[in-house]
Amino acid sequence: MPKVTEEHRLARREQIVAAARTCMNEQGFHKTTMADVIRESRLSAGAVYGYFKSKEEIVAAIAEDALGTVDELFERLLATDAPLTPLAALEATIDHVVLVAQRPGGDVTRIAVQAWAESLRNEEIRGIAKGKYRKLRDHFLVIARRAQADGTLDRDVDPECVAQVMFSMIPGFVLQRLLIGDITPATYKAGLRALLR
Amino acid sequence: MPKVTEEHRLARREQIVAAARTCMNEQGFHKTTMADVIRESRLSAGAVYGYFKSKEEIVAAIAEDALGTVDELFERLLATDAPLTPLAALEATIDHVVLVAQRPGGDVTRIAVQAWAESLRNEEIRGIAKGKYRKLRDHFLVIARRAQADGTLDRDVDPECVAQVMFSMIPGFVLQRLLIGDITPATYKAGLRALLR
Repeated sequence: MPKVTEEHRLARREQIVAAARTCMNEQGFHKTTMADVIRESRLSAGAVYGYFKSKEEIVAAIAEDALGTVDELFERLLATDAPLTPLAALEATIDHVVLVAQRPGGDVTRIAVQAWAESLRNEEIRGIAKGKYRKLRDHFLVIARRAQADGTLDRDVDPECVAQVMFSMIPGFVLQRLLIGDITPATYKAGLRALLR
Repeated sequence: MPKVTEEHRLARREQIVAAARTCMNEQGFHKTTMADVIRESRLSAGAVYGYFKSKEEIVAAIAEDALGTVDELFERLLATDAPLTPLAALEATIDHVVLVAQRPGGDVTRIAVQAWAESLRNEEIRGIAKGKYRKLRDHFLVIARRAQADGTLDRDVDPECVAQVMFSMIPGFVLQRLLIGDITPATYKAGLRALLR
C-alpha cells in the first residue's frame, strides 16, 4: 500500500522536524545536536538518520516548511487582474509572517534569527539561508516586475533593487517583534502605507 | 596628570573592546568568554575586570561604539533648514552603516547579527539590544515627526509606525549584505528611491 507508506513517511518526517524545532527553541540552534533531536523525537537513531543525514538537512526542512507556504501566497497575489502594488504585496506578506510564527510547535522566526547568526560560522547553513532567501527575494522581484508592467512602480528602476528593499521589511519586522516587542501587523502596515508610493 | 590618565584609560578600554571584537569575529559571539578576551587583549585579568565586569558589559561597549556615531549622523541630518524626507535620512543611514562595517577591527555588523540570536537566549543581551535599538528607532521617529512638520510625510499617520518601517531597512540591508552578498548602498538606495514617496 504505497499511499499509507508515503503518509507514514511524511508523518515521521514531520515528527523529526517538530522535535528539532522544540530542541532549537529550548536550548538554542547552535547547541542542538542530532543526538538531542533523536532523543526528543522518541525514534531510533537509525530511523532519524533514514530521513536526515545531518542537522543541516533538518534546518533546510524547517526553512522549507516555513517558507513553502510563501509560494502559494505569492501565487494568490499574482493571480489578480487588478493592478498590483508593492505595498499590497508587503501587507499580505507581513500578515503571513505572523500566521507562520504563531503556528503550533514554537515560533519559527526565533529559529530563523539563530540561523542568520549560524550562517556566519557554518558554510552549509549559509548556503541554505542564501538559497531560501534568494528564492523569497525572487518573489518580490516578480512583484516588482508586475508592478512595473501595471504602472504602479517606476519602470526605469532595476527591479532587483526594489526587491532588495521589499525583502528587508521581513527581517526588519521579525527582529523588532522578537527584540523590541511593540510591533504588530497593524502598526507596521500603517507605516508602510505612509512611506511607500 | 588627570588628562594623561584619562587618555590611558580610554586606550586600555579600546584595547579590550578590540580584543573582544577579534574573538567574536573569529570564534563566534556565544563561545567567546572573558578568559578569551583577557588572553587576546594581552592585559591581566585584573586590568580587564577593572574596565568590564562581564562579557555583557563588553557587548554593550561594542554596541555603543558602533551606534555612537549614529547620534552625530542624525544631528547633522536634522541641522538643515530644507525640508527633510524619510528617504534622505535612510540614504544617509545606509551609507553610514557600510562605513561603520568597514572600520578596522572586523565587521561589527557580523557581531550585531550574532547578538540578535544571543538576545533570544540571554536576558541581559536582550536588554542591551532592546535599549540600543529603541534609541536608534527613536532617531527615525524624530525624522518622521520632522518630515510631518515639513509636509514630506502624511500627518495623519502615527510617526512610531513610520519609524518601525524605517528601522527595518537597517537589519534588512545588513542581513542581505552578509548572507546573500549582492547588495550595495547604490543598489539599495535605487530601490529606496523607487519605492518611497
